[in-house]
Amino acid sequence: MKKKGGALLFAQSGGPTAVINASASGVFLTALKNKRITGVYGAIHGIKGVLNEDIIDISKEDKKQLKLLKTTPSSLIGSVRYKLADPETDDTDYKKLLEVFKKYNIRYFLYNGGNDSMDTCYKVSEYMKKQNYDVNVVGVPKTIDNDLKNTDHTPGFASSAKYISTTVSELALDLKVYDKGIVSIIEVMGRDSGFLTASAVISKESGYGADLVYLPETPFSTEKFINDVKEVLKKNDGKCIAVVSEGIKFADGTLVGKFKPAVNDGFNHVQMGGVCNVLKEIVAKEIDVKIRAIELNMMQRCASHIASATDVEEAYNSGKYAVLGAVNGHTGVMVSIRRKKGDKYRVYYDYTSLNGVANAIKTVPKSWITEDGTWITQEGINYVKPLLKGESSPKFKCGVPVYAELKKIKVK
Amino acid sequence: MKKKGGALLFAQSGGPTAVINASASGVFLTALKNKRITGVYGAIHGIKGVLNEDIIDISKEDKKQLKLLKTTPSSLIGSVRYKLADPETDDTDYKKLLEVFKKYNIRYFLYNGGNDSMDTCYKVSEYMKKQNYDVNVVGVPKTIDNDLKNTDHTPGFASSAKYISTTVSELALDLKVYDKGIVSIIEVMGRDSGFLTASAVISKESGYGADLVYLPETPFSTEKFINDVKEVLKKNDGKCIAVVSEGIKFADGTLVGKFKPAVNDGFNHVQMGGVCNVLKEIVAKEIDVKIRAIELNMMQRCASHIASATDVEEAYNSGKYAVLGAVNGHTGVMVSIRRKKGDKYRVYYDYTSLNGVANAIKTVPKSWITEDGTWITQEGINYVKPLLKGESSPKFKCGVPVYAELKKIKVK
Repeated sequence: MKKKGGALLFAQSGGPTAVINASASGVFLTALKNKRITGVYGAIHGIKGVLNEDIIDISKEDKKQLKLLKTTPSSLIGSVRYKLADPETDDTDYKKLLEVFKKYNIRYFLYNGGNDSMDTCYKVSEYMKKQNYDVNVVGVPKTIDNDLKNTDHTPGFASSAKYISTTVSELALDLKVYDKGIVSIIEVMGRDSGFLTASAVISKESGYGADLVYLPETPFSTEKFINDVKEVLKKNDGKCIAVVSEGIKFADGTLVGKFKPAVNDGFNHVQMGGVCNVLKEIVAKEIDVKIRAIELNMMQRCASHIASATDVEEAYNSGKYAVLGAVNGHTGVMVSIRRKKGDKYRVYYDYTSLNGVANAIKTVPKSWITEDGTWITQEGINYVKPLLKGESSPKFKCGVPVYAELKKIKVK
Repeated sequence: MKKKGGALLFAQSGGPTAVINASASGVFLTALKNKRITGVYGAIHGIKGVLNEDIIDISKEDKKQLKLLKTTPSSLIGSVRYKLADPETDDTDYKKLLEVFKKYNIRYFLYNGGNDSMDTCYKVSEYMKKQNYDVNVVGVPKTIDNDLKNTDHTPGFASSAKYISTTVSELALDLKVYDKGIVSIIEVMGRDSGFLTASAVISKESGYGADLVYLPETPFSTEKFINDVKEVLKKNDGKCIAVVSEGIKFADGTLVGKFKPAVNDGFNHVQMGGVCNVLKEIVAKEIDVKIRAIELNMMQRCASHIASATDVEEAYNSGKYAVLGAVNGHTGVMVSIRRKKGDKYRVYYDYTSLNGVANAIKTVPKSWITEDGTWITQEGINYVKPLLKGESSPKFKCGVPVYAELKKIKVK
């Protein structure tokens, strides 16, 4: 399905990661070299940037800065959380998109994001097909949650997992310092999928790490949690690190983080959010021990200073293969990372239908979770560990990180 | 004051840092090479380990592990928060210490910690002098707060500062991702001294960083804070990062984070944390904007994966010069890092009386704080920035950090 040249438009959507800019770098540098692509554009703040014609000309950027994107965290062209309506109900946005695509002669549209973004990507792809507008639409996977189907894993996950497991190791060392009992409850992102929480078990490979992990995939029981912690405290010289997913739920499906134990501080203050604080209150009532509630917060999605080199490379390549796929006729697909068989970790890049990815959620396989629900099996460890290989960091100048800066010159 | 050989006993006290083990490494490796030192011992959990005769023989440890200590965060021989009584009131502990010193022939006693620990060190030194027990007592400085007097700075500070400024840069990039207004309130450690919070301004040197900093040295006004945030939001496209010290106080001296239940840590310090949540509520009432409260929590004191190479080296050297000082007759002193004059950052190691350091607190100089109280002057930046130079990280094996392990074999 070769066609005449046209422009490529790239946009990003959803929460950023430590390596989402690496995908942008892969897209931009690959597209700029491709002769069939007549213009390389980026939309500011995702699909909203397309709708608002907030579109920048990447050819006007300094190549050095586009290379620096590879180690710059977060999304430098901006992201968005915006769900396109069903075109059957309301096609206003789609008409505008078609108008913009025609105006800028967009023949390759690349969208970088998670399952909601792949839904956007799929809808755009289907609409353009129906309108007989010739554009190749390719999704670039991204999400720290690793919850996309039909790809071995997603760029962004490994760097978060590396940050989490390294940080949990450090916190475990910190916990051992005093000869007093301490429980640390560390909260990790993941609403429905516990991949990030599962990755915390890798900390233990350093010799110092998590003792218990609680995933959204396993129904949470307060009673069991208290007993688990008590047992670890007994075995482990009064120290316990429990890593919990923000999305853990009771058996009836209620989020544990929504459960506010009745605490009145006398000032009618809202108790701080976060499941770790809820669990801190619960433990405090049952066990006479010092308790720390630690939220890894936004740091876990933007810590490019301890990114996985494997992840950075794969994020870059996902962008690169999205361009190559689009140019070679793929459309309505997302780049998929496939793991080769064999002991040594190796991957190749493939394409998978957007339809199968949009809005679907991959969760941690049952076979990864140990019988008592508080640890990860060797199968899970074998999956996660190779993804963390290699340490990537931004360049530093006189002790300070050096990040990319974009001029963001609008397309005329 | 040359004397016959004897054993060296080293212990650590107070909160750990990313480089406190580097000081232990410097002490142990230097002492093991010194012929005048007949035994190299470590006390488990500080002065309590001495009192309980929980003393390990460092010569039984693998040299490779003692070297690995240099990049292992936290205190591997354990720390303690224990305040010695005034010997005039109660000399029970001191008598026991003397007994232990005699039993193990301790002629060099090195204590690694902050101002409370230097108080312990000073009291031990004075008592032993009075008892005519010949022991050279030398303090090794340590504290992320950088609040020790009579030293240019303290080992541990620079690595925390590097973690904080790097993380604030990453969080600033993360904040820019959406086209919606967001305020991030980032809480940093520091009860009375705002050095760590001040160091957050270095983030801006990367191009992305903090907008406002609030130190305990400047009385906090809610009204001014709200206005400061509003102004930044206006100027800065609806984005604002405020870094606040846990110890900020209103003009009447009340802690802003006072709503957090107080816990006694053994030194009669109020345990803090949670000021970012208090401020989040304050802002939420006054400004219609999304707000994130982010606590850098224990991570800021143990993140050896982004330690300052300058700090690691200086922490090691502080340990080394403590041994050399003790052997060469210094006693009742703490190792002091002195900055040489000139544009290029260079230091030398000196000794300063423990008496002048014990229980004293150094705060951020007034000349560092800008007139409006929300930023740091070039003088402050010039002080902090060279300390952050160089990136240190533990060794990684297959994506996982490798830390030291000690056998901890008791002295017979």
